[in-house]
Order: sequence, then structure tokens, then C-alpha cells
Amino acid sequence: MSDDMSDDMNSEHRSSTIQGGIFPVVMAGGSGTRFWPLSRQHLPKQFLSMGGEESLIAATMSRLTHIAEWADRYVVAGEHHKEGVITHCPSLPESNLLVEPCARNTAPCVALAAHHIASRDPQGVIILLPADHHISDISAFQTALLSAVEGAREGKIMTLGVIPTRAETGYGYIKYPGGGLDNQSRLSAERFVEKPPKRVAEEYLASGQYLWNSGVFIFSVERILTELNAQLPKLMTSLAPVRAAIEALDEAAYTEALDEAFMEIKGVSIDVGVMESADELEVIPLRAGWSDVGHWGALSEVNPVDEHHNVLIGHPEHLALNSREVTVYSDRFTAVVGLEGVVVVNTDDATLVCARESAQDVRLVIERLRHKGLKELT
Amino acid sequence: MSDDMSDDMNSEHRSSTIQGGIFPVVMAGGSGTRFWPLSRQHLPKQFLSMGGEESLIAATMSRLTHIAEWADRYVVAGEHHKEGVITHCPSLPESNLLVEPCARNTAPCVALAAHHIASRDPQGVIILLPADHHISDISAFQTALLSAVEGAREGKIMTLGVIPTRAETGYGYIKYPGGGLDNQSRLSAERFVEKPPKRVAEEYLASGQYLWNSGVFIFSVERILTELNAQLPKLMTSLAPVRAAIEALDEAAYTEALDEAFMEIKGVSIDVGVMESADELEVIPLRAGWSDVGHWGALSEVNPVDEHHNVLIGHPEHLALNSREVTVYSDRFTAVVGLEGVVVVNTDDATLVCARESAQDVRLVIERLRHKGLKELT
Repeated sequence: MSDDMSDDMNSEHRSSTIQGGIFPVVMAGGSGTRFWPLSRQHLPKQFLSMGGEESLIAATMSRLTHIAEWADRYVVAGEHHKEGVITHCPSLPESNLLVEPCARNTAPCVALAAHHIASRDPQGVIILLPADHHISDISAFQTALLSAVEGAREGKIMTLGVIPTRAETGYGYIKYPGGGLDNQSRLSAERFVEKPPKRVAEEYLASGQYLWNSGVFIFSVERILTELNAQLPKLMTSLAPVRAAIEALDEAAYTEALDEAFMEIKGVSIDVGVMESADELEVIPLRAGWSDVGHWGALSEVNPVDEHHNVLIGHPEHLALNSREVTVYSDRFTAVVGLEGVVVVNTDDATLVCARESAQDVRLVIERLRHKGLKELT
Repeated sequence: MSDDMSDDMNSEHRSSTIQGGIFPVVMAGGSGTRFWPLSRQHLPKQFLSMGGEESLIAATMSRLTHIAEWADRYVVAGEHHKEGVITHCPSLPESNLLVEPCARNTAPCVALAAHHIASRDPQGVIILLPADHHISDISAFQTALLSAVEGAREGKIMTLGVIPTRAETGYGYIKYPGGGLDNQSRLSAERFVEKPPKRVAEEYLASGQYLWNSGVFIFSVERILTELNAQLPKLMTSLAPVRAAIEALDEAAYTEALDEAFMEIKGVSIDVGVMESADELEVIPLRAGWSDVGHWGALSEVNPVDEHHNVLIGHPEHLALNSREVTVYSDRFTAVVGLEGVVVVNTDDATLVCARESAQDVRLVIERLRHKGLKELT
């Protein structure tokens, strides 16, 4: 932790809390099929810019400036995304890139990172972050994170809950008492709920007592290891040889133990595996222009729109004529005429033209291409 | 005219008619802005295949097999389309490509061709054809043409009128007494009417007394020169030096006279300038799968459609998922998801995505591009 950080953290809680460093853990395991044809098997969403200046993972790292040094940041990714992480995070120390032998969802990823960080700083605090989300108000986000770190140092599991702006059915929700609009209020996280149907989402929005689950969690190493041991004992038993190899600084043993562990462990998310049953969970309501950039239609949430809500990216002269809510992502000049709610994406070898409301169906295109043996297009 | 043709024409009318050859005149002056981005200023619609095996002009020529030899066929085109005509009609004698100094609509084009043909065969019959239409039933078309040639030899102005299959508002109509579904009935062409509004088009369709104006006319050289002299005397006066140069075989004088004439003459269509006021005009109702291929939406009229009325051209694996009435024209693999009535066209430097019903608005895109100084895209 940097010196200025120590000053920032100089709150009244501080004397009663643990004093370890802050260790962001960025989860970059996504395969990003929903952004076909731009995203491909080896080029998932986190490595794309989605219209911004940086790739989503680079922007995720930029948002951690003044929160943690590069030496304290970790990225967890699969073998085939290793190169991408190195390219997009050139300042990341090689040993802080934790490579998973295979995808096993987020709980094993968190456990692996916790073991690494525990061996460096048993009093450390982890900020767990998805690599591929968008946040426009960095200052608001950092305010929330620092408030969350305080909570984590008191032993709480903290999460950021996004104040909803619409009755979204594509996100999970967190029930809370309501209020707390200053980006630093710590409130009780009463319950996690899965993606709701439209009618329920509308009730949630109207109630003012539900937040979107951002996937950002903040906890001490000590607390998360306690939870993992209690709630996912099998996973932790499988990972014990990995921890031993880390402590022994034995690289060969580490690789072998990791391969073996990941072969036998069950894939489970940290939300379901730990968070939903954890006590003393607090949420900080966040209003910072967050989006999970979950599908092509979401580009209008993370880019400037024109007066007809069109988002035109990639060529300065793109033209939307008599059109509304059109998203164009193409280096080639594109004219859209007389259409509403359409997404157009052009790459060198494939074009997608999709109703915005059908953006989730892009995965069906990939399925069809695989079925037809056209893997080079997926 | 070939020898087999003389046999074909051996009808009862023949003895009372003029005996000249048959001279098709193909008008290839179109600029084809409606097929942007595929058609460009130097690549108008007649040089495109529109999904077929040949370009539209090559197909127009193929439909004249057994009707007229190459030596008797003429093409009228602008200077900047000369190369295209030579490429797509390699068998056309060089002297049969009549180059207009500038576009002046169809009446001057017909007059110019009539002068050339009159100097070769004053008893000749002209078949005037647009270069860029589609006809699926060649045999039916040729039957109609030969019947029309008989009429032309009797001194009539003949036209082919397409039996309408829908209440189209994009075509002109010809009023006739009704009936005549055998592709060779010669019936009175009572009146030409301009593109009607929807309600009127519906009445026309229901009445069975209206045909679409195909733009195909058949007349003797003698008759058309008489009409032109009577109805467009100024035009003919301007062209007199051109005719003189043709007769004198004086190429330099011809070029000079043509440039001068086209500078001063007024652009007018043969329909408005001559046909609408001509007497003794007969129409042959045509049922031959005709389309003027007037805009992108018309591709479904001239290409095979799938069970959801999608037309997918250019890549064998194009995918239309949960989509209807989609037209794709692209060499690049294209997936269309969840859309209805959309046209997608991809070229190397531009993409068009357009509501099928807005296909006529493509010209607005070109206007906008010109206005922005992006002529290289037009």
C-alpha cells in the first residue's frame, strides 16, 4: 500500500481494524461470446474497448490508481488469455498473473488468489473485481471502494450494489434497507436474488430497496479463507497442496498441484458458494455510471449517444438516417436507414445485424457456426 | 437478321409489312444510385449481377439470342460507362456502342439510335430495351417480342405491358381493355399513367385493365422518326447535323455535331415526349417474371427466397436467425438476428443496413456523402 493511501484510510475505525495492504484481484476468465463477431474465443470482451479509449481490463486497472500499486494487483485468467492480459496490463508483475488450468467459475479463482495473497500479507484486504465492466465516475467508485475497505478491515464482507436506473432483468439484485446515495454508506445486504422476471424487476425498482449485484466484493484475506473453509471445504481441501507449494516457493509442485486441484474441483460462483450464505455482509450503494456491458445493446450505456439515441463507433462519418436506438460498431463506413433498435457490427470476416432486444441470441449464432464446423468464425 | 429468324417471322401479316431487320437498342444510361453501396457512379446497376450469374446488361443481351445477331444490336451509354459496356458485352461491335456526351433522358437516346439504324436499314425495326431489368421466362419474353415485331412492321408502336401481381406504386401503368394472357395478344394501349398512389394502384390491380409499363417499346425506324419529327421537332433539328455526319461517315464531324446537339437539347423521356401522345399504340400483356430491380428490396423478386422469404447472397453460410424478409448481399459471412424486412449490403469500403420499405431512401445517403465531400464513397 502506498503512503498516500495510508493517509486516506486514516478514519476513526482504523485503530480497531487489521492493518494489511489492499490487494485488487481482477477476474479475467470471461469468454465473451455475447460480443461476437468482435469477441472471439481468444479475444473475449475484457480485451475489447467497446468504444472507449482503453480495453475494459485496462480501464479496470486504471480505476485502481491511488487504490493499490501494480505490485499488489492480481489478475486471474485462463491459459489462452494469458497473452491478452500481458498485452493489456504491461505493468502487472508476471507473478501476479494467476493462470487457471481450466475455468471453474469464480469461487476457486477467489480461493486461489486468497492463498497467494495470504502468503504475502495475512492481514491483507482483497478487492475482487470483474475485468470487463464499465464505470464512468471513477471518483465515486473509489470513494465506495475505500469505504468498503474500512468495512473489510472490521471483518465484514463488503459489496458494491449499483443503484438501479431501470427494471433490468439481466442482473442479479441485492435486497437492502434503502437509501445511502453518497457512494460510501455501509448498509446491511439482506439477501441476494437471481435475475428476476420483468414484473418483479419493476417491483424492485419501485421499492427502492434493491440494488444491482455488481460482482465487486471487498473482504479481508482472513475472513474469506474462514468462509471458504466453512462453506466450501472440499474445494479448500483440494487446494491445500497448492497453498503448501506457494508457501514453499516450489514452482514445479505448484503447477502440478494446481492442475490436479482444478481437475477435481467443482465449478461454483463466489456469489452462490459463499456470499449468499455469509453473515455480516454489507453493501455500499453505488451511483457511478456502472454497466456490466453485457451485450451489444449495452454499448449505449457506455458511449455517447446522439439525439436519437444512436451510438456510432469506429468511423467518423457513420450515418443513421431516419433511425433511432441504433448501435454501429465498424471501421467501415456504415449507413443505417429507416431502422429502430438495431445493432450492426462489422469485422474483417463477419457481420452481425441484430435486433437490440435479441442481442442475447448472438450465442445462437456461435452455436450454429460451431455446429456447421465453421470454428474459424467463432 | 439471321436466317432462322426469317422463318420465325413467316406470319400472315408479313406480306403486308415492311421487311427490314430487327435492331435491339439497349439503353444503358442509368446511374443506379439506388443500389449503393454496391452500385457506384462508375458501376451502375446494369453492370451488377444482383445475385444472378450474369450482369443485368449481359442477361439483357442473352435474352436476345435468336432475336437479333450481335451485329444488329446497339447499346447507348454515357462516356464513363463505355468501359463497362465493353466488358459486359464483349461481342458488341465497337461501332454499335453509341456514346452520349451527357445524359439527356431517353428520347434523345432513341433519336440517336434511330438515325444510326436508319442509315443502315430504313425499313428496320427497333426493339428498345432498358439494360437493367430482370426477366425469368425468356421464352415468354421472346414470344411477346416477336408478336410485337409483327405489329411494328405494320407501322404500329408496340409496347410490352407487364401483368401486375401486386398494387405496386413504384411503376407507371398502361390502361388496356383487359385479358390477353398468352404473351402474344396485341391489344390497344389506351393510356399511360404515372406512378399511382396506393389506393389507385389497388383499383388498377382489381380492375384487370392496367399493366405495368415495362419500358420496352418496339417500332419501325420509319414510324419513330415520323413521331419524333412531329412531337419533338427541336430535338430533331438539333440532331440533323448528327444524322448528316452519320450518312457522310465523317467521324470527326459526328463527334462535334453530337457534342453540340447534346449540349443544347432538352432531356425528355420517350414515354412523355412521344408515347403518351402517339396514336395506334398497342400493348402485349407480358407474364414472364419481369422486375425492374428498382431497389434493394426487389432482390427477392429476382432471386430464390427461403421459407421465411429471406434472400441471402454472396456467402454460402449467411444466417438469418428468427428473421423474415431479410436481404443480405455480402461476400463476408453475415448473421441477421431477430429482424424483419431489413436489407444488409456489404462492400469493401461501405455497409448499408436499411429497412426494406426505406430502400428508396438510399439516395439520401449518397446526397449526404456528397455534401460531406466523401465522393470516393459514392
